[in-house]
Amino acid sequence: MSNGLRARQDMEKERETLQAWKERVGQELDRVVAFWMEHSHDQEHGGFFTCLSREGRVYDDLKYVWLQGRQVWMYCRLYRTFQRFHHSQLLNAAKAGGEFLLRYKCAFVLTRDGRPVKVQRTIFSECFYTMAMNELWRATGEVRYQTEAVEMMDQIVHWVREDASGLGRPQLQGAPTAEPMAVPMMLLNLVEQLGEADEELAGKYTELGDWCARRILQHVQRDGQAVLENVSEDGKELSGCLGRQQNPGHALEAGWFLLRHCIRKGDPELRAHVVDKFLLLPFRSGWDPDHGGLFYFQDADDFCPTQLEWAMKLWWPHSEAMIAFLMGYSESGDPVLLRLFYQVAEYTFRQFRDPEYGEWFGYLSREGKVALSIKGGPFKGEWGTGRGRRGCASRLPPALTTCPPPP
Amino acid sequence: MSNGLRARQDMEKERETLQAWKERVGQELDRVVAFWMEHSHDQEHGGFFTCLSREGRVYDDLKYVWLQGRQVWMYCRLYRTFQRFHHSQLLNAAKAGGEFLLRYKCAFVLTRDGRPVKVQRTIFSECFYTMAMNELWRATGEVRYQTEAVEMMDQIVHWVREDASGLGRPQLQGAPTAEPMAVPMMLLNLVEQLGEADEELAGKYTELGDWCARRILQHVQRDGQAVLENVSEDGKELSGCLGRQQNPGHALEAGWFLLRHCIRKGDPELRAHVVDKFLLLPFRSGWDPDHGGLFYFQDADDFCPTQLEWAMKLWWPHSEAMIAFLMGYSESGDPVLLRLFYQVAEYTFRQFRDPEYGEWFGYLSREGKVALSIKGGPFKGEWGTGRGRRGCASRLPPALTTCPPPP
Repeated sequence: MSNGLRARQDMEKERETLQAWKERVGQELDRVVAFWMEHSHDQEHGGFFTCLSREGRVYDDLKYVWLQGRQVWMYCRLYRTFQRFHHSQLLNAAKAGGEFLLRYKCAFVLTRDGRPVKVQRTIFSECFYTMAMNELWRATGEVRYQTEAVEMMDQIVHWVREDASGLGRPQLQGAPTAEPMAVPMMLLNLVEQLGEADEELAGKYTELGDWCARRILQHVQRDGQAVLENVSEDGKELSGCLGRQQNPGHALEAGWFLLRHCIRKGDPELRAHVVDKFLLLPFRSGWDPDHGGLFYFQDADDFCPTQLEWAMKLWWPHSEAMIAFLMGYSESGDPVLLRLFYQVAEYTFRQFRDPEYGEWFGYLSREGKVALSIKGGPFKGEWGTGRGRRGCASRLPPALTTCPPPP
Repeated sequence: MSNGLRARQDMEKERETLQAWKERVGQELDRVVAFWMEHSHDQEHGGFFTCLSREGRVYDDLKYVWLQGRQVWMYCRLYRTFQRFHHSQLLNAAKAGGEFLLRYKCAFVLTRDGRPVKVQRTIFSECFYTMAMNELWRATGEVRYQTEAVEMMDQIVHWVREDASGLGRPQLQGAPTAEPMAVPMMLLNLVEQLGEADEELAGKYTELGDWCARRILQHVQRDGQAVLENVSEDGKELSGCLGRQQNPGHALEAGWFLLRHCIRKGDPELRAHVVDKFLLLPFRSGWDPDHGGLFYFQDADDFCPTQLEWAMKLWWPHSEAMIAFLMGYSESGDPVLLRLFYQVAEYTFRQFRDPEYGEWFGYLSREGKVALSIKGGPFKGEWGTGRGRRGCASRLPPALTTCPPPP
């Protein structure tokens, strides 16, 4: 057999494997959406129940605002970008969720009818609110949603870059001025969201996007040997557990945010750095050699983390890893990244799926047993599974030839 | 063999078993105290390092105020009540810890040199401060410590019973006025602490102690079938996860606080109720039939709890259970309670001990494997193991004939 023929056959086989994954992922996306459509809609007040048991029973009717915003975003995005989800039931639920958020805004958690239960003194509820409003505008064409999104974005940028005092955090003498990587990550995500096919806003936020990327890159520490979750604002390692904290799934998520940034910038050198530091490095340190799966937290000096759940396997780091490796492969063609996608995807589909009731389990023990049977809770909604499936579905086979759509 | 002879032989055997436990517990107490003496003292600033690895290495030098107060209390208590701990090294370390607390007071966590890092808008740092100051007064005779204790107690009672606004919690329209059981528990503990051999203060706090006991008893819900962690202030079940939350180890701890209250009151009827609802009931629901050990959290309707660590086995619920069952047996003579003490103690000594480096592991998986190898952290100090060992040591054999000392 000639070398050319063998190469063509290998490529054909690869294409078939990827096509099979595309179908699997697409089926999972359908099952996940069906689960949330069936169980999560609050017909009375709008918005979504997210505390759902394995079977989909509502075990608490509190409304966590992160998850409200994410589900609105997800529904609109599916409606806009997949023919089979372009139906009014999905759009109407998204609109009802959006109106609920518009009325009651951005505490951390609300009662079913919208009264605030708990506030967090961070930017994240507002960030998911902004993503929801921007997508609603794109899905419906109603300008008032976009006005909300842009005004809230200005507020968030003000808090992050000018004056955080409006968030109401106490100023304490011993508290380090730490930057959690989540902050520039979230902002970079918003820059991409608002700038999509919108030259004016893309231009407005160009400098902000560059700033976010620089700040995320500052989290690569110790001569490039570790991505640390928290660093000082001028990019130095902080002392103690806070400074040594690592979260491999979060680093991988930052990785694909940065890959998208590199694509917009057309910067292959930065892309190679990102693949090295935010994809390969966290995977090497974070993958459990004994039982498979990504650890939730690690300590850069190999002390035992103090988070009780540090060794548990959560659904979302695996979703982020699948997106990151597929996007990395799609951009670079490096087969190592494709192999890592397969490794993560095989573990993920084997361990997290619930063949009986649909959707995915969110929390496994270190050994891979289901530790919590809930399908949704204070931090798990449709987003983590839906975005992962959507992100992969839209990047499989076509991803080999076309540029992937925005996250 | 006559019945009388057999009964005497059984009693003799029981006494031997208890004597063996007393020795085991005493040895563990020695090892625990030695571990903290060797690794935790901050010779430069006073106070204690509590973030200690398996071997005793300091992996973070933050000072969690709960643990500072508790260690001062523990050292003074040991100094006062055990001949072998009546030495100046222990007292001097307690005094240095007390002076550290006096200087920097009651944030939730301080830097090594006392600058506040984080505040909690609750009463607990102040409660442990009060316990520390009162014990320091008892151990040293220096009145200024007692003045501090009594003034802080007045402040705490004001927050709990008159006006909580000084704690700075935001007033949110949707937040239920929930009472965590920890609040009346903690206050009842302080009533006993301050009233010990002090007729004037015991009199001052009599009404408060009765109020605390009534409030704790309100947490027995569902026709006496469940102890719920959070109820409304007028003793009704709250909706959702918050309302259904159970913590078997915490209920057992409340149980022995209430038993002490019954002893002071001379109320055998209440004692029987407490044994039934706060000892037997939480043990029946909370003991893992498959792997042994007490679950950390449960849901009264058997939904899966949302706490990722719900099925883990923590050291402290087992310490509390050992004290509770031994105290219950000591008061009632009911052999069922003695059997339960043995059951818990056997699990606890088998699973939590670290024969290699001393002290105890704090966090096991559901199956009983060590999940975190740390010996101390943000919430685990010398208290949980030390108080457990001390509480049991002082209740074994003598407990069969004499009234146990205060907790």
